[in-house]
Amino acid sequence: MKSFIQISFDSHFPIQNLPFGIFSTQQNPTPRVGVAIGDQILDLTAITVLFEHHVSELKSPSNVFSQSSLNSFMSLGKPLWQATRRFLQNILSNDNPELRDNDQLRQKAFVAQKSAKMHLPAQIGDYTDFYASKEHATNVGEMFRGKDNALMPNWVHLPVGYHGRSSSIVVSGTDIVRPCGQRLPAKDHPPIFGPSAKLDFELEMAFFVGSGNKPGERIPIDQANKHIFGLVLMNDWSARDIQAWEYVPLGPFLGKNFGTTISPWVVTLDALEPFLVNGPTQDPAPLSYLNHDVPSAYNIQLEVKMKPNKSDFFKTLTRSNLKYMYWSLKQQLVHHTVNGCNMRPGDLCGTGTISGSTEDSRGSLLEITWNGQNEIDFENGIKRKFIEDKDEIVLTGYCQGDGYLIGFGECSGKILPALQ
Amino acid sequence: MKSFIQISFDSHFPIQNLPFGIFSTQQNPTPRVGVAIGDQILDLTAITVLFEHHVSELKSPSNVFSQSSLNSFMSLGKPLWQATRRFLQNILSNDNPELRDNDQLRQKAFVAQKSAKMHLPAQIGDYTDFYASKEHATNVGEMFRGKDNALMPNWVHLPVGYHGRSSSIVVSGTDIVRPCGQRLPAKDHPPIFGPSAKLDFELEMAFFVGSGNKPGERIPIDQANKHIFGLVLMNDWSARDIQAWEYVPLGPFLGKNFGTTISPWVVTLDALEPFLVNGPTQDPAPLSYLNHDVPSAYNIQLEVKMKPNKSDFFKTLTRSNLKYMYWSLKQQLVHHTVNGCNMRPGDLCGTGTISGSTEDSRGSLLEITWNGQNEIDFENGIKRKFIEDKDEIVLTGYCQGDGYLIGFGECSGKILPALQ
Ligand SMILES: [Ca+2]
Ligand SMILES: [Ca+2]
Ligand SMILES: [Mg+2]
Ligand SMILES: [Mg+2]
Ligand code: NI
Repeated sequence: MKSFIQISFDSHFPIQNLPFGIFSTQQNPTPRVGVAIGDQILDLTAITVLFEHHVSELKSPSNVFSQSSLNSFMSLGKPLWQATRRFLQNILSNDNPELRDNDQLRQKAFVAQKSAKMHLPAQIGDYTDFYASKEHATNVGEMFRGKDNALMPNWVHLPVGYHGRSSSIVVSGTDIVRPCGQRLPAKDHPPIFGPSAKLDFELEMAFFVGSGNKPGERIPIDQANKHIFGLVLMNDWSARDIQAWEYVPLGPFLGKNFGTTISPWVVTLDALEPFLVNGPTQDPAPLSYLNHDVPSAYNIQLEVKMKPNKSDFFKTLTRSNLKYMYWSLKQQLVHHTVNGCNMRPGDLCGTGTISGSTEDSRGSLLEITWNGQNEIDFENGIKRKFIEDKDEIVLTGYCQGDGYLIGFGECSGKILPALQ
Repeated sequence: MKSFIQISFDSHFPIQNLPFGIFSTQQNPTPRVGVAIGDQILDLTAITVLFEHHVSELKSPSNVFSQSSLNSFMSLGKPLWQATRRFLQNILSNDNPELRDNDQLRQKAFVAQKSAKMHLPAQIGDYTDFYASKEHATNVGEMFRGKDNALMPNWVHLPVGYHGRSSSIVVSGTDIVRPCGQRLPAKDHPPIFGPSAKLDFELEMAFFVGSGNKPGERIPIDQANKHIFGLVLMNDWSARDIQAWEYVPLGPFLGKNFGTTISPWVVTLDALEPFLVNGPTQDPAPLSYLNHDVPSAYNIQLEVKMKPNKSDFFKTLTRSNLKYMYWSLKQQLVHHTVNGCNMRPGDLCGTGTISGSTEDSRGSLLEITWNGQNEIDFENGIKRKFIEDKDEIVLTGYCQGDGYLIGFGECSGKILPALQ
């Protein structure tokens, strides 16, 4: 499969990918639906006539694609996502002259990514964060509760998750202000107030719910993939000192809800299907509602880079992989709805920090520096235990195909000093 | 102050109250903004001409009041809420002939509450639940973690809270399906799956955020009341067996997110101002950002009634009061934003279960039956430890004024059997 659009060999967005996003331009500042192809964006509002010709199942494409979020499109369901994807691959194909040879339409329909502004891909009604990497849960548990209580008894029986804050989810490139809050200066001392001194990232991915379920009903495991629209990278910024003091017994709150960054392009499950692999063996076997005997993990290579303030270079901090996750995305979704909790199009579910079993695959500074016991060295003698002001963090990820990448682009953010 | 609308002595909605809500009628099924007065609803879309005459600060009242949620109105800010309230008290007053003597307009403008359908008052972007009653936190802590760990060290220093699920918040009168989930059949046994056997209510109130704050900024305590639009009753349905198994370490999830019921009428802080009283003494003194030295608790009498399946009568289970809460609503809001977490108009914050210090003021069955150790007797030999299928729970609440009530109406719900 080849497009008439030039795709560089290391592009995250070949014709095999075609992730959806919301963009605007200076010329047309109304946010609308686009698809990434190479270093371009195909503006779906510019080709609605073609949709009308070729995807008749899609009623009023001009309405769906002129929205400032993907929620309308997500709510249409998987058959329509797939019809749209097939049509886009067809119309972008080198073999198809319809768009390729229509200079006037091409002029209108393509926008350079570098001249576009990306927006949040969806209006996120509810955001949930899971805790699905056994290595991460074990590392954090050991630091916060000691080796004997590292992994709670429930952890191997269900994908542990909690509700997060949707108002503070921002798109890649948005600055994050360092949070203030209460923390303990030392054990058995009263708490003090001030800017967090242990600001961290968490390497995560997240899936967008496409079609939801009604209250009281559940999504069975063999239907789960029909309800998942696609995936993004996610950085769950975390203030470890605030979190450690506040989180017992009701979970993380102010240590997390000041900001969560996601990448702008939503990569569909269809694009990721060639990269399905078996996940870790689950022992004990999960209860039957969580059982799946088909490959349900995704082989997605992940990387975190950091550029400290006053440095000119990014240093790679960690390399991990989504396939390390103990609980699959399907299990997360199924568990979330097993009590009848209703999901809506545009809801976002984070996987939790994705750590591997080796030291160089740990997905947070908390684990990499072991809660600040060790330092990371950068050039020019710069050292870090946690994130300092004006430091930048970038997450990237891709699947290695045969001669192409299915990539996620970047999920980046810079920390600004706390407001006084 | 007296209205030309007949108000019965025990009405929750005299002219001193004027709570806002969203309603529709068979004749006009479009949800829109109304105000409760006696047993009537004043349809604000029917009197937009009067608003244009008398509340010129309010740009395009027809647009604001024809919305299917209060979010637009909430976002206008306190001066406009107050101007609207003053105008409504004026136009409903017995002394003012403008609406009183306009039969044609009265015909259009008033709808009997019994012939209206109430909807959720707002589109809730984010929902947070606090844990602000010391008596409740102590009771639950004792049962779940033992007497020595009942109240965590952080509890007296900050209002503990966690994020809940906004998709499953429903308006009073909506049936709730019993949730299924994992629970432990006995200590050190593997979990089993099935309908919750310990379904409970939680007597709470909740405030709606009116105007929000920008990401990275905080709301200072002396500004907090400007950001709170008003209060409703809330029943935070809870599956104790699911909750007990899942909640460590990230907090309640499926034990809560299957359904939360709120009352339809939002009572404004202005209507509640005469009922401000001092809350419990806070010892240790909270950190300065949480400090207020003016009365900040509300004297709101609360009651929970239950009608078990096959019974014809409601029995009162508990009588409590919002003033028992250790942490004030202002402290909850200020703490929530102290890390820069941005609030949006329509966000909802629950207080947590409101229990008093006596056994007959406990706000949940968990506390009343002490986790099922005791039974509650109803007539005809009916007994309950937790909620069974087709049982109904009703929360009510009001402030006792001098010759009038400022009431909240009812927050009711019935449990349907789990889906198989
Ligand atoms: Ca996380
Ligand atoms: Ca609660
Ligand atoms: Mg976060
Ligand atoms: Mg609830
Ligand atoms: Ni054509």
